[in-house]
Amino acid sequence: MPRTKGDHEARRRDVSEAVWQVMATRGFAGLTLRAVAAELDATTGLLTHYFPSKRALVEYALDLLEQRTIARPRRHGGAGLAALRDALLDILPLTAEATDSNRIWVSSWDAALSDPTLSTDYARKYAQSRDRLTERVAAAQELGELPPGDPADIAVGAQAFVLGLVVQTLFDPAAFPPQRQVGLLDDYLSTLTARTDPTTITRHDPDGRP
Amino acid sequence: MPRTKGDHEARRRDVSEAVWQVMATRGFAGLTLRAVAAELDATTGLLTHYFPSKRALVEYALDLLEQRTIARPRRHGGAGLAALRDALLDILPLTAEATDSNRIWVSSWDAALSDPTLSTDYARKYAQSRDRLTERVAAAQELGELPPGDPADIAVGAQAFVLGLVVQTLFDPAAFPPQRQVGLLDDYLSTLTARTDPTTITRHDPDGRP
Repeated sequence: MPRTKGDHEARRRDVSEAVWQVMATRGFAGLTLRAVAAELDATTGLLTHYFPSKRALVEYALDLLEQRTIARPRRHGGAGLAALRDALLDILPLTAEATDSNRIWVSSWDAALSDPTLSTDYARKYAQSRDRLTERVAAAQELGELPPGDPADIAVGAQAFVLGLVVQTLFDPAAFPPQRQVGLLDDYLSTLTARTDPTTITRHDPDGRP
Repeated sequence: MPRTKGDHEARRRDVSEAVWQVMATRGFAGLTLRAVAAELDATTGLLTHYFPSKRALVEYALDLLEQRTIARPRRHGGAGLAALRDALLDILPLTAEATDSNRIWVSSWDAALSDPTLSTDYARKYAQSRDRLTERVAAAQELGELPPGDPADIAVGAQAFVLGLVVQTLFDPAAFPPQRQVGLLDDYLSTLTARTDPTTITRHDPDGRP
């Protein structure tokens, strides 16, 4: 029976799923043709048809990570501060799927940091992500839900907070169940709303002038 | 001429330095006997004397990372909030040495997350680090420099903030020079000092009871 286009597409989906599973359990360091073949219950020979080299496999895996990150469902719960909270909740490992995805992102940092092209690409991606958070911070400020202050600095802080919480949760999921992650994020957001604008603090002149 | 104990120690230091340099530039993914030998300007044959297997090399590298982290110079600038700030500054990539060390830590996360024993070990290390921060938060609260609130939760938040800032800085050092990292940390600490204790907020009863 001749192979149809449908067979080909189905096979590609299977390969993608196998690559994803290997990354989620063994990380990029464990991503080999042999491991993907074992996950697929196929021969490494078949895999070389898709990935002629280790580099091709890694590039495919990085593309897959980006595509799945773009395609993931997102919260759309409100405007202003609620929208900022949604964007940060979307990053946290609150579900099994989000945990796999975060684990793969963290795993990819080693490869990305050792490759100048990838490193530049990651820097750009994180800067874009901060820009999107900056827009939401500015919107929350316009609504009066956040006090004044450089929205870009607040966005950097928020991104730092969630990235660090992701890392701590991946290593110690028992200590950071979803409810605790959300509680910690809400604590963080409440410190932002209580934040005093540093520019309004009276600076004391060392010579005693007002 | 017979080899002395001094030669042996000097050679061990050279090997450690070569392993460190390879990790700092290529990460754990690039840590191979061949790369260490090239860095040492030696043969891989000599290296197998020190590291009979790849696993032995990785274990040595992880030990080296921990030893150097323990041995690194630390700030001792004060008590209370100043001591908390010191501990957080000690983590940030503010110098070339601290950048290498952080880059190697981040790189080691991939290997650590794929190995259950290492993963448990890392979870323990980060929990200990949070415990040390918790003590400093509690001391700052006793001095009245930080408002009341669960010191462990505040410590988790502070650790999350610096870990996330480390990751952003490693990818984009130009966007996060030392002065900006310190400014962002001080901004973060100022939100903690302005923090309203959530337990003192009046909770509104939905039925309108006081």
